[in-house]
Amino acid sequence: MKRGFDRLERLCRSTCGSALGIRPAVTRFSFRISATDGSARTGVITMQRGEIRTPAFMPVGTAATVKAVGPVEVRAAGADIILGNTYHLMLRPGAERVAKLGGLQRFMGWERPILTDSGGYQVMSLSELTKVTEAGVSFASHLDGSRYMLSPERSVEVQRLLGSDIVMQFDQLVPTTSTQEQQAEAMERSIRWARRSREEFDRGGAHAERAAIFGIQQGALDERLRAASADALIDIGFDGYAVGGLAVGEGQEAMLGCLDFAVDMLPSERPRYLMGVGKPDDIVQAVLRGIDMFDCVLPTRSGRTGQAFTADGPLNIRNARHADDPEPIEAGCPCPACNAFSRAYVHHLVKAGEILGAMLMTQHNLWFYQRMMQDLRQAISDQRLQSFAREFLVRYLRRN
Amino acid sequence: MKRGFDRLERLCRSTCGSALGIRPAVTRFSFRISATDGSARTGVITMQRGEIRTPAFMPVGTAATVKAVGPVEVRAAGADIILGNTYHLMLRPGAERVAKLGGLQRFMGWERPILTDSGGYQVMSLSELTKVTEAGVSFASHLDGSRYMLSPERSVEVQRLLGSDIVMQFDQLVPTTSTQEQQAEAMERSIRWARRSREEFDRGGAHAERAAIFGIQQGALDERLRAASADALIDIGFDGYAVGGLAVGEGQEAMLGCLDFAVDMLPSERPRYLMGVGKPDDIVQAVLRGIDMFDCVLPTRSGRTGQAFTADGPLNIRNARHADDPEPIEAGCPCPACNAFSRAYVHHLVKAGEILGAMLMTQHNLWFYQRMMQDLRQAISDQRLQSFAREFLVRYLRRN
Repeated sequence: MKRGFDRLERLCRSTCGSALGIRPAVTRFSFRISATDGSARTGVITMQRGEIRTPAFMPVGTAATVKAVGPVEVRAAGADIILGNTYHLMLRPGAERVAKLGGLQRFMGWERPILTDSGGYQVMSLSELTKVTEAGVSFASHLDGSRYMLSPERSVEVQRLLGSDIVMQFDQLVPTTSTQEQQAEAMERSIRWARRSREEFDRGGAHAERAAIFGIQQGALDERLRAASADALIDIGFDGYAVGGLAVGEGQEAMLGCLDFAVDMLPSERPRYLMGVGKPDDIVQAVLRGIDMFDCVLPTRSGRTGQAFTADGPLNIRNARHADDPEPIEAGCPCPACNAFSRAYVHHLVKAGEILGAMLMTQHNLWFYQRMMQDLRQAISDQRLQSFAREFLVRYLRRN
Repeated sequence: MKRGFDRLERLCRSTCGSALGIRPAVTRFSFRISATDGSARTGVITMQRGEIRTPAFMPVGTAATVKAVGPVEVRAAGADIILGNTYHLMLRPGAERVAKLGGLQRFMGWERPILTDSGGYQVMSLSELTKVTEAGVSFASHLDGSRYMLSPERSVEVQRLLGSDIVMQFDQLVPTTSTQEQQAEAMERSIRWARRSREEFDRGGAHAERAAIFGIQQGALDERLRAASADALIDIGFDGYAVGGLAVGEGQEAMLGCLDFAVDMLPSERPRYLMGVGKPDDIVQAVLRGIDMFDCVLPTRSGRTGQAFTADGPLNIRNARHADDPEPIEAGCPCPACNAFSRAYVHHLVKAGEILGAMLMTQHNLWFYQRMMQDLRQAISDQRLQSFAREFLVRYLRRN
């Protein structure tokens, strides 16, 4: 009897990573939609490392840190999941090293889900001497010039070494200025790479038993390419689907026009993730069109350059009119920065180049984004997303 | 009866800054020594904004922030008091502005005591086109070249505008390479400036009712100059006495040699403050010689350059041997950085120039310094300072 229990416990540990009796058998990946409102939906993704409330915004933790804040502050802001960058992490500190140290979650002290991108975007935008073949992309590190190779297989392997909870397929990106023919070719190659990514993921053993993999729809702004991409990805089969290749300079109107047809091409019972988006108004507009997940450096990067997000639009804390202002960054905001400090103080810190300025501004912006997501989720639950979105956008954009 | 009570309450508010019944009448400044061990002492300074356990280490909050940490983290490390820099704050954000915003404590969210220096040291080391006369020092800001004047009167006024709890007299510093005659002249001028500082402090009304002022002994390494300086300061009368003009490049041996005679010249019933010191071994040696208060940028500055303090001596976290080390910065350290993160992670952050690296290293170093002060206080209470100091120094210096 005892031996049978021990075997069962070992089995349970090996498949769900937790001991019998401590946690019941855990879903690898499920997406439960609790309410819809027009095209928008709200729900919960359940994974072994925790739940992700959708629509979700993922703060970006490029180099194993959400810049200028610790993991406790990221969680306090309300984030359920963060994003890690495969390209940056494979170069420094190195995926094999992170694996030896117990994975990215333990390394950076964030025990909840992490989504990792595939490195495809950074390889094209940051690295040098890049050479793309059917096998993959060969490139030189922007840090020290040493040569690396990323292929669908290596990208998924790196993400597995990092211990990623949501793996992104490796895809090929082309500039928005590319010809239609180049865009079609990149989309088709991305499909072939999607299949190879999925196959490599499935060879992952214990990792594949607890993680998920998303495909990425490509096809620029072309409806037929988007449809072909979606069909092929669905044929391969993924846990979730991303809309890729947007927010790369095409402008909000073109992006939303694309979402108007692209989102519906993706399975409604799966999470739909708009990569690299965006400004608060982008996010509200995309949620209206059925997007469930977002990531963007904007709240953190803006925090370091002195731009605060508020319900009344962005605010440049460096502006001289804040030098004597005893009010918080945003009236009524419950974040640690607004709770304890004035605009005058944060203005001073940012002007003086003090690290604490970046810390406080980043915290405020992370709270702003997460509160906005919570408001969106609530508005969908309450079937009043249209009016919420209208009021939000009018107020947010009034100042500009 | 009611009117009498109201009058009494008004009186109490005006003299001790708190309402009758909410707080009992509060001491302006008292120093109670609870134990001595050789020349060393431990005790408590009581002020209206809180108690300061001595020997005390004051983290430096140059520009209204202890760099790379918030006030909550500074307090969590165990600090009872921090130091603010008059020179930096008068240039940016400006003392009048800080006063309008409710004082430095409210401005930076640190509601406990703050000691402000007089600006004399920074004026000589940072500013340009400096001109010293009997009236004071005229100089150009290192930020924008605009001209300012610091005199004993203006220095104390600035400190009052900042809402300083412990005001330092304005003094004149000369390079260590000065002739004995120049040193004697600077010491004598500092005495005249001490008297003017004290007089300006006493004209401060409500501020003088709740704050304290310290004199600064000068005289370089010369015993007779030190004695003359101490005698004159005692004649004027201060709440505490600082040993100034040390830790400016003379070396530890010379500094300790000077303390061997200089400390005893200062009243034993008053706090004795060694300005700008120092390394952990400097502090232990100075406590043995009867010093009660310290300040230094070392724990915070080192935190930003990758040097961690440990009981086994300083540790350069950038060293490649830490890249794979799963151990915390210092085994057994209860600080937030050591609690949650490995050397490998902090090494990665510091190498990558991530702000979180500076945040974690700074927190560790602040905790290390405050734990050392707590250990020193306990060792004095237990009458075992000699053996504690010997063991601490052997272990701390072994590696070097």
